[in-house]
Parts: sequence; C-alpha cells; structure tokens
Amino acid sequence: MIIQDLIVTPIAFPDPPLLNAAGVHEPLALRSVVQLVVAGGVVGLGEGWGERDVVEAMTCARDELVGQNVFDLAAVEAAVGRSISARDQGADTRLQTIVFAPIEVACHDAQGKILGVPVSTLLGGAVRDSVDFSGYLFYKWDRHLGTAAAPDRWGAALDPAGIVDQARTMIDEFGFRSLKLKAGVFHPDEEAAAIEALAEAFPGTPLRMDPNGVWSVETSVAIAERLRGTLQYLEDPTMGMAGMSAVAQDAGIPLATNMCVVGFDQIAEAVRTDAVQIILSDHHFWGGLRRTRELGVICETFGLGLSMHSNSHLGISLAAMTHVAAAMPRIDYACDTHYPWNGEHDILEPGAIEIRDGAVRVPTGPGLGVELDEGRLGELHALYTASGRTHRDDEAYMQAAQPDFVDVRPRF
Amino acid sequence: MIIQDLIVTPIAFPDPPLLNAAGVHEPLALRSVVQLVVAGGVVGLGEGWGERDVVEAMTCARDELVGQNVFDLAAVEAAVGRSISARDQGADTRLQTIVFAPIEVACHDAQGKILGVPVSTLLGGAVRDSVDFSGYLFYKWDRHLGTAAAPDRWGAALDPAGIVDQARTMIDEFGFRSLKLKAGVFHPDEEAAAIEALAEAFPGTPLRMDPNGVWSVETSVAIAERLRGTLQYLEDPTMGMAGMSAVAQDAGIPLATNMCVVGFDQIAEAVRTDAVQIILSDHHFWGGLRRTRELGVICETFGLGLSMHSNSHLGISLAAMTHVAAAMPRIDYACDTHYPWNGEHDILEPGAIEIRDGAVRVPTGPGLGVELDEGRLGELHALYTASGRTHRDDEAYMQAAQPDFVDVRPRF
Repeated sequence: MIIQDLIVTPIAFPDPPLLNAAGVHEPLALRSVVQLVVAGGVVGLGEGWGERDVVEAMTCARDELVGQNVFDLAAVEAAVGRSISARDQGADTRLQTIVFAPIEVACHDAQGKILGVPVSTLLGGAVRDSVDFSGYLFYKWDRHLGTAAAPDRWGAALDPAGIVDQARTMIDEFGFRSLKLKAGVFHPDEEAAAIEALAEAFPGTPLRMDPNGVWSVETSVAIAERLRGTLQYLEDPTMGMAGMSAVAQDAGIPLATNMCVVGFDQIAEAVRTDAVQIILSDHHFWGGLRRTRELGVICETFGLGLSMHSNSHLGISLAAMTHVAAAMPRIDYACDTHYPWNGEHDILEPGAIEIRDGAVRVPTGPGLGVELDEGRLGELHALYTASGRTHRDDEAYMQAAQPDFVDVRPRF
Repeated sequence: MIIQDLIVTPIAFPDPPLLNAAGVHEPLALRSVVQLVVAGGVVGLGEGWGERDVVEAMTCARDELVGQNVFDLAAVEAAVGRSISARDQGADTRLQTIVFAPIEVACHDAQGKILGVPVSTLLGGAVRDSVDFSGYLFYKWDRHLGTAAAPDRWGAALDPAGIVDQARTMIDEFGFRSLKLKAGVFHPDEEAAAIEALAEAFPGTPLRMDPNGVWSVETSVAIAERLRGTLQYLEDPTMGMAGMSAVAQDAGIPLATNMCVVGFDQIAEAVRTDAVQIILSDHHFWGGLRRTRELGVICETFGLGLSMHSNSHLGISLAAMTHVAAAMPRIDYACDTHYPWNGEHDILEPGAIEIRDGAVRVPTGPGLGVELDEGRLGELHALYTASGRTHRDDEAYMQAAQPDFVDVRPRF
C-alpha cells in the first residue's frame, strides 16, 4: 500500500470551437493524467488540469509522495503541500487543491483496486446505481480558424435554431433528459430566445443556462423574469457574492454557481446572504472526491441544492465524477459534462464508462472501474508535446477572429 | 471482507453515584459491545449504548448484516435500517443512528485490521498524534445507597471545596489541563461558586460547566454574566433552540451543546439563530465516525467550535473517540470523557489506550488499536445478566434518596 512512483503525463486532445464568455475553445484542450504506482503493482489513475504550472507542481510532488501510504489521504495531501511550498512558499492554497485532486482520485482508484471494491464504496457507498448528466449545449463555429479546417461533425450553432439542432443531436446520441446552455456569448435576449426555443422543442425537459457572470445585476433579473417557469435554474448570471445575492432576491428561480462559491471558506457567507441556492461541485477544484462528498453533506445540511460542474475532460474524470455523485447523500440535478464534445478522444479501454439514456452507470469493478489505453495516452502526450501549448487562452483565440474582443464582465 | 457474524454483548460495570440534572448515576452503568466477524477471521470491535431496546435492535441486525461487505458502509447502514423497520415500521431514525454507530465503528476497526492501518487513517488521516481530554468533575455522594456500601475512592463532592479536591485528584492521576463541571444539581449560585473556586485553585486552566438545560433563560444569563472571563464555554444552560439563542445574545461567552443540536437536521437553524457557538460531537448518536468527521467539516466551514460529548463508557469508545478526534480538521477544545470514572473496569487488554498528561495518544496499530479481554467481557456480561437492569434511570435512583425529586427543566 506504499506509493512507489507518480507518473504525470500532460496530454492534449482536439476540442471543438465552443463559444463562451471568455472567448472560444482553442483547437486543443490540455489535461493531465496521473498514474500512481503502489507497491505490489497496483496503479491508481487520476485526471486533472493541464495548465503547465499545475502539471509541473504535480510532477514535482513525486518525491514527497513516494513512501506514503495510499490509504492515508491526509499524509498524501500534506506531502503535496510540502512539495508545493518547497517550490514556492507563496503558492496559494488553491494550487495545492488542484494539484492534490487528481492524486487523491488516483489514491482512491488504487485503494479500490487493492480492496476489490468500487471507489463509490470507499466514499461511503453508492446510493444510486447510475448518475444523470445533462446535455451541455454551446454556441459554436462550424470549424476552427485556419484555411485547412473543415466543418466539424457538430456544425455551427449561432442562433436558437442552431442550438435546438445541437440539442437534438445530443439527445439522439446520448439520451439526455436535461439540457444546459452555455450562454454569455450573444446578447442576453438572443440567448433567452434560445432557451425558449429549447422549451418549445423539448417540452418538459429541465433547462438551465450559464452566462458565466457576464451579465449585470439588472440584466440578470430581467432575464430571470423572462425565463421564470422555463429555467430549472440560472447559473452564475453575474459576478460576485453581492451581485448574486442581489439577483437571487428578485430572480424567482434558483441560482447555481461554480464561480462565486468555489471553496469551503465561501459557503457560510453564501448561506448567510442566500446568494446561491445550488452549488455545482467539481472534485478537481474542491480538493478531491472525499472533500466533494463533504460538500454534498454540507449542501444537504443547509438545504442547498447540489449539482456538478465540468471542464473539458476525458473518461478518468467522468468515472471519478460518477463515483462521487453516486455516493452523494442527495444530488438534485443532472450533472454537467463536456464528455460528448471530447469523449471520442478518450484514453480508456472502451466500454467501461459511457453516457446512455442521459446517464452513466456507476462502474462496479474495483477502483474507478476503468482501464488506461497506454497507446492512446502516448498519442495524446505526443500531441501535447508537439503543440507547445502551456495554458488555455479562450480570449486570445477569440481575438484572432475578432480583434476587438475583450473578456470584461459584466458585458451585458 | 464479507461480514460473517455480529455478536452483541450487553454489559454492566460499576459506576459511582455521580449527580446531575436528571438525578444520580445508579450503581451499574449499561453498555453494549459489538464484535463484527469478517471472513478471514478479523473481528471488528464497537461499543454502544446499553439500553435494552438498543441492544435488542442491534442483535436483530445480525441477519441483514451477514453477507455485507465491511467496506461498504452505506450498505451496512441500509441493512441496519431494514432490520429495524422489519421489527417496527414506526421506529424513529434516531434509533437507527444509535444502533448503527457501534456497528460502523466495528466496520472501521475491521477495515483497519484488514489493511494494517489505524482507523484515524481511514477517516482521512490523523492531523494530530494525541487528543486532549478534559477532567470531568461531578458532584457526588461518597457512596451508593444501601447499608452495605462503603465510601468509594473518590469520596463526596457536594460543595466548592469538594469539587476542587476532586479536580486535584483528577489532575494528579491523569494530568488534565482542562476541567468541566457537571452542574444542574445545586442552586446555580453554589455551582458558580464552585467554578470560581476552581479558577482560584487552578489559575489559567480552561473551565466549563454543563447544567444540562436545567436553568431558565434569565438564570443562564445571570450566571454567564457572573462567570464571564472565568468560563471557556457554557454548555446547555437552558433547554431548546429558542432559549439557547436568547441566552447566546447576552451571555458574552460561547454556548456549547449536545442537547439542542443532536442531528444534522438541526444545524442550519442553530447557525441561522446563532443559538450555539460550539457543537459537542458524539459518534454514538451522530451516526458513527464518518458522520462525526463530517460534522467537524461543517463546524469548520461555518465557524462553529467543535468539542466532544461523553456518556459513561469504556475503552473501545475511548479509542473510537480518539481516532475520530485525531482526524477532525480542527478540534477546538479538550474532549469530554467519563473514562476516569469507569476505566478501571475496562474490558481491553491494558496499555493500548490511556489518559496521560490530559491526553490520549492516537493508537497507531491496525484498526482501533485495542484488543478485547474476553474474560473481562464475560464478567461484565454476567454482571449485566445478574442485575436484571434494562435501562438507565437516574431520576428513580435519586427518588430513592429524596422522594420529592422530580426531573423538571428549567428548575432554577
């Protein structure tokens, strides 16, 4: 049960040109894969952020991790903290959280493999055998910039009709029973019209939208009033706790967030000011699976709704998200996932984890219940290396198409 | 890792005549010992309440538990729930919590023994290597009722001087660096005088008192005012959330509770009304070690202080309390324990767990790190059987000495 090695592999994989408040997704998304080698030959898997500073900090944690017991998560977290402090005494605790998260997932995977039980069991036990996910709709171009690019299989979605078409494709392929629109791209009235078009095309399907804080308080309230009775919840309409609290007073629909409450130290104020009614968990920045389940307990205790946020990710993350969602005492809404946009590039042996009927069955095999395809991992690492990319910059990529674009919020 | 058997042994052990708001401790305290037999021969230990309805419900859980995976705590809890519902569909959830708790501890002990790691590690890892406990002072008679009884080794404590003497004995024997007085027995002014005497005798030692809700709001505020600057905290001065909230407004010292917040469903109101500033956890009625740690996370998140409540108990409980306290993200005060009053009757092989310098070192052996003395267990079970006792009744025992005694609250 002693950690013998940590192998961190940065990867890049193709990503469609998905529009959002920050700009547009670049042709390659970055991610990191953690392989935690434990005495006896068990290897735990984790997937994390791909920004270079995160990858470097993760890689440098190896020496402190070797020799730790994979069942002693506090010792593993302390080891990560020591390695980060040794490199930069002023490093903020958020870096530690983000670096620790995929390592903690890998610890859970290794624990489960050693014990022959699924990760959901280690998190207290699955209370559901499948986890619902929502179809994550994006405004998008039909292709990436550059003369050589051809339209991708999704095509363009730049107006309500395009969003409805995209939703139909998503539902046909994956069976989603909830839909989320990434908003914050066009004028709020156009985006509200897209939600109304979805409501008309898919009556009874829960809908939500997320403009990533790009609206003013006044705009947020106006859109909320317009979409009252249509939206299941409205995610991060405006920036900051005070703004969200002001919107919440008049919105008449629940507000969700993965922006103004992103750590345990912000929850008390959010409850006190009733700024949000739903927290979108994300084990990648809430400090791993165990802490995410604790967030779920807090939400249950304080009557906050719980759902799950997603960034561009592959199947190790999807498996981890599914296990922790399965072990949540209560999860109120279908979770977000980018997997339909990126899953075809996955690095797992196929079949273990897939979205069907809008849900992922909780793997019942040991650990996360997924196996790595080392060949695919190597290919995506080669793509990463060849790309020379070090971080995500949606704004710069948007400026290549629209030079006057600036990511300021609020913008509408 | 499959549960093969559950053996529940009710026991009785001698208890001194400790006075409290409900009356006085009877000559025998009741308790239950759980032995959870897992395939491969590992036996997990737990200790729980000894009331007959609890012991019976625990015993009847056997059939549902056999065949469960000892690592799947949700399945174990569900099995306990099924067995309780099968006996009484109207059984309240609190019985399930109390029955599940020692079984959950036994699961953790078995898990740790299987993995070769301490229970604290399974709870996220020890963040401290010893846990502070407070000296738990009681008003007491010098002997139990009945002509044959001789004075016990503690002697009487019926006034401030007696309490100071008792504290000195406690400190001499166990090295306590915090003191708690069980109040609610005599007129509040007399009890306040005892606290003042302790402050004079042991300057700088943190002091607290617990009248178990026997004071009115007015009395509570008056005593709080008198002891401001002297008490570290005041525990359950009055009954109920509204009363505690009223006291908290004017007390000027933090209020603690193990009475008005005893479940997760009461925390949100307590936070909203600021009724308590410190929650006294107790894994025996908060649903086991994992839920207790989650309580700790909630306290940390909402800026509530955290300490630990105790009933009369033996060493398995002390070990469990120590492991979970060690894994708490933050524990703000020395924990309560009755162990000095009862530990001489323990059923463990000696040496693994003891109070020294006012603290218990967190056992580092597998599981709870303690071993059962089967002979002693048999003796205490025989004592239980011979006693014919089924439940604790401090009030009736007090009435044998003082026929007009009635446990009404508030009383002062």
